Amino acid sequence: MTEVIIAGIGQTPVGEHWDVSLRDLALKAIQAALKDAGGIKPQSLFVGNMLAPTLSNQAHLGGLISDYAGMTGIEAMTLEASGASGGAALRQGYLAVASGMTDVALVVGVEKFTDVIGSDIEEAIATETDSDFEAMQGLTTTAQAAMLMRRYMYEHNVSANGFANFALTAHANGEGNPNAMFRKAIKAETYAKAEPVSPPLNMFDVAPNADGAAALILTRRELVQSIGSSPLVKIAGSASSMDTLAMHDRKDMLFFDTAQISAGKAMKQAGVILDQIDFFEYHDVFSIYAALQLEAVGFAIKGQGWKLAADGGIGLKGKIPCATMGGMKARGFAGGASGVYQAVEAVNQLRGQAGKNQLAGARLGLIQSLGGPASTAVSHILSVA
Amino acid sequence: MTEVIIAGIGQTPVGEHWDVSLRDLALKAIQAALKDAGGIKPQSLFVGNMLAPTLSNQAHLGGLISDYAGMTGIEAMTLEASGASGGAALRQGYLAVASGMTDVALVVGVEKFTDVIGSDIEEAIATETDSDFEAMQGLTTTAQAAMLMRRYMYEHNVSANGFANFALTAHANGEGNPNAMFRKAIKAETYAKAEPVSPPLNMFDVAPNADGAAALILTRRELVQSIGSSPLVKIAGSASSMDTLAMHDRKDMLFFDTAQISAGKAMKQAGVILDQIDFFEYHDVFSIYAALQLEAVGFAIKGQGWKLAADGGIGLKGKIPCATMGGMKARGFAGGASGVYQAVEAVNQLRGQAGKNQLAGARLGLIQSLGGPASTAVSHILSVA
Repeated sequence: MTEVIIAGIGQTPVGEHWDVSLRDLALKAIQAALKDAGGIKPQSLFVGNMLAPTLSNQAHLGGLISDYAGMTGIEAMTLEASGASGGAALRQGYLAVASGMTDVALVVGVEKFTDVIGSDIEEAIATETDSDFEAMQGLTTTAQAAMLMRRYMYEHNVSANGFANFALTAHANGEGNPNAMFRKAIKAETYAKAEPVSPPLNMFDVAPNADGAAALILTRRELVQSIGSSPLVKIAGSASSMDTLAMHDRKDMLFFDTAQISAGKAMKQAGVILDQIDFFEYHDVFSIYAALQLEAVGFAIKGQGWKLAADGGIGLKGKIPCATMGGMKARGFAGGASGVYQAVEAVNQLRGQAGKNQLAGARLGLIQSLGGPASTAVSHILSVA
Repeated sequence: MTEVIIAGIGQTPVGEHWDVSLRDLALKAIQAALKDAGGIKPQSLFVGNMLAPTLSNQAHLGGLISDYAGMTGIEAMTLEASGASGGAALRQGYLAVASGMTDVALVVGVEKFTDVIGSDIEEAIATETDSDFEAMQGLTTTAQAAMLMRRYMYEHNVSANGFANFALTAHANGEGNPNAMFRKAIKAETYAKAEPVSPPLNMFDVAPNADGAAALILTRRELVQSIGSSPLVKIAGSASSMDTLAMHDRKDMLFFDTAQISAGKAMKQAGVILDQIDFFEYHDVFSIYAALQLEAVGFAIKGQGWKLAADGGIGLKGKIPCATMGGMKARGFAGGASGVYQAVEAVNQLRGQAGKNQLAGARLGLIQSLGGPASTAVSHILSVA
C-alpha cells in the first residue's frame, strides 16, 4: 500500500464555543489544515463525530461540512464509533489514500457538546453503552468509569489518590498548549481535596466535555506541497479492534483487550517495538482509562499503570511521555474530534513544533482513540517520514 | 486494486418489526449472509445506519453489532451519510478489501424506524437537511420533495399523474419479492385517487419508513467458498459525490449533479457505458427522486424521466428495468439499510436468483444510494465476475 503523509494540520481551541456553530468550528480547523498543507485540494472528506444528530439536530455532516467548505463534488461521509469516531475517521482517510483510491483526503473531527446542559450531554453519551442493558438502567459512562476505578483500587490495592499524577501531568502539559481548555497546572493537594463527581472519581479524574474541531490533510509523498523546514510526518501503522459493548460481558474488565490488539497491530505494520515509541497520546477521558491503556499497550504490567504515573513516568521527561499537550483532561474532551486532536498534537511533536512541551528527538508516537471503555480502540503510529 | 467479490448476501423482510430489536434485525441479516458465503469469517464490519442514536437511543452500532454477532476482536465502525448510509458502508467495505487491508469485510445496513410515531421519524429524518436553515424552519424532507416535484411539473409541463408509473412499477415488482413490505400491485386509478401526503405528492409517491436489515460479505476471489452453481458477482465500480446540503444553494435543483458524477465515475472504473447497464436500482424514496436520477444518470434527457416511466421503460421488460424487487416504494425504505438492500437485490438478479422478477441475461447492474435530495450519492456497478 501507498505511504501516507500527514501534509497539513489544523485545530481550533478547545472550550465552550457558544458563539461558534458546528459548521464554523469545522471550517476553522479545515482552513488551518489547508493553509498548513499549502493549498492542496482534497477529493475525500471523512468526518469524525459522536453526537451531532442528538445534540445539534444535525446529521449528514459529510454533506454539511463539504458544502460549507466549498467542496461540493468531492466524496464525504461521517464515521461514528463513539469516542473513537475521530480515530475511525483518521483510519478511513488513511485507507482512502493508502489504497490509491484518493490522492488527497481531508479528515475532520468535530464536536459541539456545550450548547445543551450537562445532564443532556451525559444522557446522549450514554447511548454509546449497550443501551438496552446499561443506559436504560441509568448507567452513565461516568458512573461506569467509577465502578471500573473502584474495582481496580480493590484488586490492586491502590487509593484514589494513587491516580493523582494522571491529572497533574495533563494539567501541567496543558499550560504549554495554547489550544487547551485548561492551561494551568494543579497541585497535588488540589487533586486530593477535589469535589467527588462519581466516587471514587473526583472532578480531576474526568475530562471536561467541550467543543472543538481538528483537521488533517493526508496524501502521498510526491503530492506534498512545501511545508517549510519541518520534517514530514507519515502514518506508519493503523489498526482498530472491538470488544463487547457491555462491561458485564467481559472476562476481565480490568484489561483493555482492544487497546492491546490495535496497538500491537499498528506497531507490527510500522515495524517497530514498544521501546521505540517516544510518546503516547492515550484516551484519558477518565484517569482509570489512562491507567488501563498503559497496562494493555504494555508500558506497565497489569495493576501498575497508576504506579508508572505516580513515579513520574508519564511526564514530558518521563519514561513514556503521555498526554503531551494536555490530553483529554486538560486540552478537553471534544468527543469525535479527540482522535484527530491527538494526531494534530503528535504531528506537532514530530515536526518539532510543540513549543514549550516539545519532546527532544521525538520520532515515533502512538495515538489511541477509544469508544466506550475500550469497546472500540483505534491506534495509529505516526513517525518522522 | 484487488477485485472484490460479493460472496454472501442476507436480508430480513422489510416492515414493522415491533417484536425484533435493532441488534436482532442486524443479526438475522448477518447470519443469512454468513450462511450464504459458506461460513467465511470477516475481519471488518461496516455498519450503515441513519438514526439509531436518535430513534433507538443507541449509538456505537459497530460495537453493538460486532459484539452481538460474536465477532469481538474484529474492527467495526458506523457510516452515516443520511439515506446513503448503506451505500457509504458498502463503499468503505469495498475499499477495505480492494486495498488489501482486509481479507473479508462484512457490510450491514440496519434501521429501526417504526418504534416511534411518524412525526418523530419525520423530525429525526429532517436532521439530514441543512438543519439550521431548513429543518429549523419546519421543512421536512417530504415537504421538500413536494416542492421539488411541483417545480418539475411547472418547468416540464407534467401533471402529477404523469408520475404514476414509478409507483405502479414498484408495486408490481413488490409482488415478486417475499421480503417486500408491500407485495401487491396497484392500479392506475388507485394511484390517481390516492390521498395527498404533501401535495402534489400522494401516498404512493412516498416510500414507507420501515424496519429492516441487509448484509453483504465482501472478499477476494481466491477466498470465496462454494456458492453452488450461481455465477460470482463482483463490485466493478464504486464512487461517491457530494452536492450542497441545502436545496436553495443549488444552481439547478432539478438536476441531481451527484447522481451523474458518482454514476459516471463508477462506470468509468468498471469500463462500461450506460447502454450496457441491464438494470438500475434507484433511490425512489420519492417518485420525483426516481425521475431526477433517471435524467442525471442519462437514461432520459432532462425533463423526460417521468416520460420514460410513463412509457413503460422502467418495467421488468422495459428499456431499463428499475426497482426490480420493488424499490424503496414497495420493498420499503429502511433508512441506512436501503443501499445494502439494493446490493442484495442486484446480486440476486445477477445470480439468476430473483425468482418471478428475474431479468433475462442480466450481467450489469447500477445501484445508487442517496442522502437527502442527492446531497450525497453513492453509486456502485455490480457485475457477473
